[in-house]
Amino acid sequence: MQATTLPAVLAPVISPFNAQGRIDVQKLLRQCHWLRSNDAGVAIFGTNSESNSISSIEKMDVLEKLIAGGLDPKITMPGTGACSVAETVFMTSSAVKAGCAGVLMLPPFYYKDVSDDGLFAYFAEVIEQVGDSRLQIYLYNIPPITKIPMGLELLERLITAYPNSIAGMKDTSGDWSYTEAVLKQFSSRGFRVFAGNEIFLLRTMRAGGYGCISSMVNIDPRRNAYLAAHWQDSNADQLQAELDQVRAALVKFPTVPTMKAVIAHFSKDPDWARVRPPLVSLTAEQKNQMALELENINFSISGL
Amino acid sequence: MQATTLPAVLAPVISPFNAQGRIDVQKLLRQCHWLRSNDAGVAIFGTNSESNSISSIEKMDVLEKLIAGGLDPKITMPGTGACSVAETVFMTSSAVKAGCAGVLMLPPFYYKDVSDDGLFAYFAEVIEQVGDSRLQIYLYNIPPITKIPMGLELLERLITAYPNSIAGMKDTSGDWSYTEAVLKQFSSRGFRVFAGNEIFLLRTMRAGGYGCISSMVNIDPRRNAYLAAHWQDSNADQLQAELDQVRAALVKFPTVPTMKAVIAHFSKDPDWARVRPPLVSLTAEQKNQMALELENINFSISGL
Repeated sequence: MQATTLPAVLAPVISPFNAQGRIDVQKLLRQCHWLRSNDAGVAIFGTNSESNSISSIEKMDVLEKLIAGGLDPKITMPGTGACSVAETVFMTSSAVKAGCAGVLMLPPFYYKDVSDDGLFAYFAEVIEQVGDSRLQIYLYNIPPITKIPMGLELLERLITAYPNSIAGMKDTSGDWSYTEAVLKQFSSRGFRVFAGNEIFLLRTMRAGGYGCISSMVNIDPRRNAYLAAHWQDSNADQLQAELDQVRAALVKFPTVPTMKAVIAHFSKDPDWARVRPPLVSLTAEQKNQMALELENINFSISGL
Repeated sequence: MQATTLPAVLAPVISPFNAQGRIDVQKLLRQCHWLRSNDAGVAIFGTNSESNSISSIEKMDVLEKLIAGGLDPKITMPGTGACSVAETVFMTSSAVKAGCAGVLMLPPFYYKDVSDDGLFAYFAEVIEQVGDSRLQIYLYNIPPITKIPMGLELLERLITAYPNSIAGMKDTSGDWSYTEAVLKQFSSRGFRVFAGNEIFLLRTMRAGGYGCISSMVNIDPRRNAYLAAHWQDSNADQLQAELDQVRAALVKFPTVPTMKAVIAHFSKDPDWARVRPPLVSLTAEQKNQMALELENINFSISGL
């Protein structure tokens, strides 16, 4: 395993769209800077970024502009996984060449019931074709969406075959017994496990994990990063409970439109609420309810 | 609804890959000609074509070369659905400009539990952006893979809003009661329903459907096309039973690698067996079993 410059907590950064539906690069850059100033790294082009609603070419164009505009690639982990080897290699190579500290890679997610042999062959082909010793892949396990769980045997094969390139994973299985098994089997070998949901952040840190990459980091970066840094403090359970309270306040709303609505609300910039189809923005009523829920727990965001 | 030049039966054409893993365009062209000479149209870039394992750019490059090489766009229905509006519009516009009689369009398949509002907005945006009166969309309902069932209310909204562009569907739900409901509600309005599996071909024709687009057409085009043309004949049930026998012989093997193995076997061209990951080719043992199963029912292919 290689050393890393990645922060323990990263936001799967929501993507701002302008009136023409294009990514507003300057706004995205400001959001990345705000996240960094709140101790979080940036996992752009993740599920919360509506990554798969953005073409590969548009994503790589935006990445180039962000870095040219001052985004630090050392805290950046773009999502580069697509259904085809060719598109995954294109995006991954671009990210590695741009100096990104890692890439977040979905398994090919079209076919279902695929075999471990097929998944292994897929990642192997991507790694061979990228052919760059700087490559740091964080496998993205999100079976609630992909319907493709990445089992321990597959992880073992990948880590054994490519110990220099397979750097870790984001686990959004929602299944703590699975996460725990991954941590137990692989973290001592330098494999970095990010919880895909901050409700597992403290447990992940205590079991030898690296941090989290979670939707809520978009709106609550500092407290997530603080807990990841202070998980051994005596009040760690209390810190986790505070994070859990924010999630509980928002759990009844759809995740991505809600993260965008929260940022729109506190930045007083309604443009942030735009999503691309097939997602749908919150209704006015949902927005009001959301604001009320957050007011009830005294949650607010400043500095946007 | 517009008139169409599409045959009733189309093959979701398997994609031949060369030793470098690239599409062998000349071989694909010959296969398309063979299918046509056996009365089938060509739904290139479908699920059986490993469409999502091929980049959008490679697909459109291949389409251009196929048509330049003599493929008749009037019998061609390329798959052009991707997860993003941008990629779907790119491929759809290319296909329409090339004169293709229709396009087969998946719903955006990354997010799950998406709303009808979101799906409607997606297709509406694609149609508006393509902005071409020749556009003929065949919706591709394949919930076993996409996990996104397209309900009757969504179909009603789309057909009502875009009667000139929403031309029909390929239904691979595997749920005859759903197919029947679609046929009952929409076929009298000119909406063309293709069964996504030839086991439903006769039932589809009897209920007012148009034909089928099914993996098995790759290896048994003429008999599928014959049944679609002669479904009112007195021996139609017998013809259907003959198709069913071929499927039954192969049902225990994984579909796409098996279609390729069958063509490789009868064409004596082992290159046909290549697949792209995450799919995996049949093992030697599976290939032998497959050949034996087909021998047992006296199935063979000539003219390849």
